[in-house]
Amino acid sequence: MKLLRYGEPGHEKPGLLADDGSIRDLSEHVADLSGAVLGPDGLRAIAALDPQALPVVDPAVRLGSPVAGMRNFVCIGLNYADHAAETGATAPSEPILFLKSPSALAGPNDDIVIPPGSVKTDWECELAVVIGTTARRVPRARALDHVAGYTICNDVSEREWQMERGPTWDKGKGFDSFGPLGPWLVTTDAIGDPQALSMFTEVDGARMQQGTTANMIFGVADLVNYVSQCITLYPGDVIATGTPAGVGLGQKPHPVFLRAGQSVRLGIAGLGEQNHRTVSAGRHR
Amino acid sequence: MKLLRYGEPGHEKPGLLADDGSIRDLSEHVADLSGAVLGPDGLRAIAALDPQALPVVDPAVRLGSPVAGMRNFVCIGLNYADHAAETGATAPSEPILFLKSPSALAGPNDDIVIPPGSVKTDWECELAVVIGTTARRVPRARALDHVAGYTICNDVSEREWQMERGPTWDKGKGFDSFGPLGPWLVTTDAIGDPQALSMFTEVDGARMQQGTTANMIFGVADLVNYVSQCITLYPGDVIATGTPAGVGLGQKPHPVFLRAGQSVRLGIAGLGEQNHRTVSAGRHR
Repeated sequence: MKLLRYGEPGHEKPGLLADDGSIRDLSEHVADLSGAVLGPDGLRAIAALDPQALPVVDPAVRLGSPVAGMRNFVCIGLNYADHAAETGATAPSEPILFLKSPSALAGPNDDIVIPPGSVKTDWECELAVVIGTTARRVPRARALDHVAGYTICNDVSEREWQMERGPTWDKGKGFDSFGPLGPWLVTTDAIGDPQALSMFTEVDGARMQQGTTANMIFGVADLVNYVSQCITLYPGDVIATGTPAGVGLGQKPHPVFLRAGQSVRLGIAGLGEQNHRTVSAGRHR
Repeated sequence: MKLLRYGEPGHEKPGLLADDGSIRDLSEHVADLSGAVLGPDGLRAIAALDPQALPVVDPAVRLGSPVAGMRNFVCIGLNYADHAAETGATAPSEPILFLKSPSALAGPNDDIVIPPGSVKTDWECELAVVIGTTARRVPRARALDHVAGYTICNDVSEREWQMERGPTWDKGKGFDSFGPLGPWLVTTDAIGDPQALSMFTEVDGARMQQGTTANMIFGVADLVNYVSQCITLYPGDVIATGTPAGVGLGQKPHPVFLRAGQSVRLGIAGLGEQNHRTVSAGRHR
């Protein structure tokens, strides 16, 4: 299934994408895509519905994050060897973990807001794991049982705030609009092997990132197992699993960053695409 | 006012501490201590109630975190010069910011659970700022207008996961039980100058930390201003403002850490005390 949330920011309703490409409303059946709805029983109940019997939604509607009720927006750093190399770092011996502020959550086609004065705003296309059931110190062999599905995360990053303003990274990751998720929460049954998905990012039509989740240093099962050792994960939590080479910071002969007025398009096989426009903070609010 | 939340974990109700020391139930008047309830109008409405007319609550009830609906549990690192020195760090030139997982939230007297295998679990008594209204890039002069009140945070930290397992700190800060808040949310009108509060931590009755918020490098107004530049703060969000000298990591001639079976007592003038027992993870769940 491809689940989604649609409507104005803060007022999204649950829906799904039917096989015929139409958006269908789920709000008569579930309050939101959060909590127990994301567990096996909740997803089975949605799967038992006939999409053609659900109300049709205007296809031009705004999409929001396809998951609600998040407590933890976990990100994994330097999880592709080629990306670690392009930033001058060595590949980590265990996962690098940081937290993105949920304030950054946005829809898959929302504007990316360049922070005031920023000249180092960067893109990162990532496979995002959506947790379906509470995961506390789960063994690797059971880790995927706790996953509801997958979506795309653009882990937008302001490199000056991330890397030049102290020893931790979280400052550069949590600006408004820096955490678009979507377009869909694709349930695990519909995605096959999460470690065999091609992924890309284009800026103004130029291909910048081209990778595959096969090149992750730590795969999805490793990451759910690892993160759940130190942070209990709840339904609706997300792990953004890192980005392949080709971010702005890694461009040669010198870094290239986003400025207002650009288009950013990113996608992962089977998970759809995000399409953003970049705007300056002054124009945004 | 001293606001609080009482009851079993995940099922807390709102209440207040009356001047006579009794706990009074607020659940007929507010759904929870979150969102608009924490804004000026919400707090004024509670202040207009007669505490003696509210239902009395069993004084032996468990207390939970005095604030609900948190999105951001922001922590400030090395914000007291004496603590920076004891850890071998230089005082920062701008605030060091990291995020604590909301999974760590706990009540003020809940057990501190030592993670499996941990030998470096440490205490940090901190003044915690509770946000009352949305703060996005607020100037310093208006920063305190966004504060609902103050409480105590024990920023419990597992130093191996924080400092020896990669470049970021969040892993060591987000274990279950590592974020006790309370006992009360003391509203700003009842606390006076937040930069003149004495604070302490005792472990098994021995005084380990003795400080004052007067020694913060960056004060509360500075921090709300700074954090709101990169992370939009919402009602119920918390900024834990850093800890003075005397953590376990800083003990001489060698560090001293928590083990199961100890008592941890910490307090801040006007904000009450927390009393924890330490237990091993195996016994806890």
